[in-house]
Amino acid sequence: MDDPAGDALHRAFDPEVFRRDGHAAVELLAGYLRAALEERGLPVLPWAAPQASLEAWPCEFPDRGGTPFEELVERTLAGSIHLHHPRFVGHQVTAPLPLAALAELVGALLNNGMAVYEMGPAATAMEHAVVCFLCGALGLGGSSVGNGSADGGAEGGAGGVLTSGGSLGNLTALLAARQARAGFDAWREGVRGGPPLAFLAGADVHYAMARAVGIMGLGAEALVRVPLDPRRRLAPDALGPALDAATRAGRKVLGVVANAGSTPVGAFDPLEEVADFCAREGLWLHVDGAHGAAVALSPKYRGLVAGIERADSVVWDAHKMLLIPALVTAVLFRDARRSWDPFAEEAPYLFPGQCREDDAEWFNVAHRTLECTKRMMAFELYAVLAVYGPGLLGDYVTRCVDLARRFGELLEETPDFELPVFPEANIVCFRHVPLGRDDDLDAVQERVRRRLVEDGSFYVVQTRLDGAVHLRTTLIHPRTSEADLVDLLDAIRRAAGA
Amino acid sequence: MDDPAGDALHRAFDPEVFRRDGHAAVELLAGYLRAALEERGLPVLPWAAPQASLEAWPCEFPDRGGTPFEELVERTLAGSIHLHHPRFVGHQVTAPLPLAALAELVGALLNNGMAVYEMGPAATAMEHAVVCFLCGALGLGGSSVGNGSADGGAEGGAGGVLTSGGSLGNLTALLAARQARAGFDAWREGVRGGPPLAFLAGADVHYAMARAVGIMGLGAEALVRVPLDPRRRLAPDALGPALDAATRAGRKVLGVVANAGSTPVGAFDPLEEVADFCAREGLWLHVDGAHGAAVALSPKYRGLVAGIERADSVVWDAHKMLLIPALVTAVLFRDARRSWDPFAEEAPYLFPGQCREDDAEWFNVAHRTLECTKRMMAFELYAVLAVYGPGLLGDYVTRCVDLARRFGELLEETPDFELPVFPEANIVCFRHVPLGRDDDLDAVQERVRRRLVEDGSFYVVQTRLDGAVHLRTTLIHPRTSEADLVDLLDAIRRAAGA
Repeated sequence: MDDPAGDALHRAFDPEVFRRDGHAAVELLAGYLRAALEERGLPVLPWAAPQASLEAWPCEFPDRGGTPFEELVERTLAGSIHLHHPRFVGHQVTAPLPLAALAELVGALLNNGMAVYEMGPAATAMEHAVVCFLCGALGLGGSSVGNGSADGGAEGGAGGVLTSGGSLGNLTALLAARQARAGFDAWREGVRGGPPLAFLAGADVHYAMARAVGIMGLGAEALVRVPLDPRRRLAPDALGPALDAATRAGRKVLGVVANAGSTPVGAFDPLEEVADFCAREGLWLHVDGAHGAAVALSPKYRGLVAGIERADSVVWDAHKMLLIPALVTAVLFRDARRSWDPFAEEAPYLFPGQCREDDAEWFNVAHRTLECTKRMMAFELYAVLAVYGPGLLGDYVTRCVDLARRFGELLEETPDFELPVFPEANIVCFRHVPLGRDDDLDAVQERVRRRLVEDGSFYVVQTRLDGAVHLRTTLIHPRTSEADLVDLLDAIRRAAGA
Repeated sequence: MDDPAGDALHRAFDPEVFRRDGHAAVELLAGYLRAALEERGLPVLPWAAPQASLEAWPCEFPDRGGTPFEELVERTLAGSIHLHHPRFVGHQVTAPLPLAALAELVGALLNNGMAVYEMGPAATAMEHAVVCFLCGALGLGGSSVGNGSADGGAEGGAGGVLTSGGSLGNLTALLAARQARAGFDAWREGVRGGPPLAFLAGADVHYAMARAVGIMGLGAEALVRVPLDPRRRLAPDALGPALDAATRAGRKVLGVVANAGSTPVGAFDPLEEVADFCAREGLWLHVDGAHGAAVALSPKYRGLVAGIERADSVVWDAHKMLLIPALVTAVLFRDARRSWDPFAEEAPYLFPGQCREDDAEWFNVAHRTLECTKRMMAFELYAVLAVYGPGLLGDYVTRCVDLARRFGELLEETPDFELPVFPEANIVCFRHVPLGRDDDLDAVQERVRRRLVEDGSFYVVQTRLDGAVHLRTTLIHPRTSEADLVDLLDAIRRAAGA
């Protein structure tokens, strides 16, 4: 060809180039899995200071590129945190199932954007199927929107959508609550169209809730913090006084946000009692189950979310405890009709309490997600459910919680460690208290963490509980063992002493 | 092992299983690329009614799964729209570069969540690099946040973040404008804390803007629609009267939203004149360049966005004209300090106009994105820039716009087609007007589109312009040819007649 530019563009789409690069990438990634997960031959985190990373990845791109893809993949593998290392016990982000990553490759290449059905027929149907599965797992009842049942749009079963992450999912759910319960059309009139609004939430609720009310223009005081019980669960007795105080202050309370697995310590709020309160007071119940809703798949631990089936909305991240790569978040509604409320401009005649007339539109999902074009994210979860089955996920959840409770026992038995709250699920916070020394304990935890992170032997994080710094672990890797945790305690002692 | 459940979980993470499934997936996808892109042996869209798709993907997952992964991939390929077919000329979603999909595989497996630097060191640095590149391409100046320059946090260069899609990107930018220009702390006090707020926007602005003001609690009237000129560009002369009217109605106008590539017809608002107006009136200028900012990479067409370097914020989707899979959206700020404003609860001392003191925190990107955990989405764009170079993307953009303008000429020369607006970039709307027949022209376009979609020969979409239904095409595939477009017109004639 006499068109070098066109020629390069043509080559970049050559199926044979893809085949070559693809097989090479699979080999590199299989090697990474072996090294991280089986041989443990990599540091969990190859620590480099931010400025050093910045210099290693400069903002310089020659006009015709020229970096070999394999070299780039190798450098990326070397410069990333290795979630597949069984000593990754830090944040609530999963080491994804390799199959789910392959599903994402398929979705990325097909790039079916799903805003409307035509832009992703199979993906839309798969989204409906996984939403239906997740609703069923929580006891919300199967999805009714568009499933062909006679009551599809009427006395609604459950339903919902997938969206890009827990923060967006929680925002979506709270927008639904705002629209359904404000008593005026907050979407069209704005939030000045009625009294100041508010939500009640346990004090350990995720910062996404503060963000949501900030974004929604409700102001910081619209998130009313309710005290916790000694296990850091929302104290149901505190709800009434909080509601009364907010009401006296002139606010209309829309609902309660409960945790099914709080971020700091993985506490599960007493959903039955919270649901009773909401039913009595006519409030929306939103459950942030981003992390913990997954216990519903574990026959052994599903009791932790008893009552979740009474929630008006639930957020559940597949990228936390369902072994899926980020971001795949389900926003589930007990009454599927409420899934039309968050972005109410799509249906100006849809004032709170009214069902969308054109239920046939269930398949154009952008009506109900902030995203217009979206990733075909359902495929990843669909593939895991179809290939491995829900049982595998349930086994995984059970294993993680078993291990965390064993870790809790171990910490209780160990004199130089303190456990502030026995773990309900798989998040465990604790402090190292070096015996016979009079150290600044906050500084000890911070020093320990910094040293572990920088030497790459374990990845742990930290948080403050009642003002005191604690080490924080999430036992989220399917191959972390009790022996690893015993070694962790030894590593902490060494790091504290050094 | 005597633990069948643990055994299944162990096998699911076996690197050898990944290797086998990975190579199989690469083969299937290479075959798909050959069939769709080279042989054109697939329908563009394998049409099936929504209900039929639903029945093909039921919500039934045996507890131990059992579906072979390859079978699932084959069914997904068969049930998806094939963006890699050169006769996909519909919505603004790209046939991604196969290399970018492989980059997403790497990112999906590594799953570096990036909320804090430790959770994605290389990914964080890559995000900084691509944001810097994009800012530079628009003339906004290189990113200064955290680049080690002495003025990093002071007299700010440009900067920004990547986020999950254009709707979220536009919301993020408008939140920044709200916080920076309301004159009161709208985040903490809520939007009742001052006068009603508003934005001015051209009438053809994307529905994401209406959503943003709805979400932000400003009400539907907060988006003031400004009339268009005959080429469907925002008419700068109409800005003054719109501002006066909104002010008289008691609203404080925060800024102007301009299009760089409108959704209906790809019109580019006259940014220099809009920027002059904003400078004069002290208004924030936000440019929705989700689609069209990419012309900045084309030496031939970058004049279309002259003035974009004066914007306060710009949204640019990599998944539209940068050949990256959805969703990768850049939110760019001329003054990087403004990137801290959208989610101001992170820095309660950060009242509008104040720079965040702790500039070192640039590397914990969740301060500045709605997402907490995020995909390591920078890698896809970084890989394309490093391997192929910006030149390849510029060539691609030039090619698409060249083709669209040639299509515009063709439509002008063709008596039985009407072109309402000559294309500035690569979106072309038109109507078929069968000669010598007295049809309902709206019905003709709808019938034509429905038939093309259902027979799978082309994928085109439709829109209403001044109330009249038009066929709408986006020439976004690198291998669509003029001959394809001649064939499209013939196919339309046949579909209209049948």
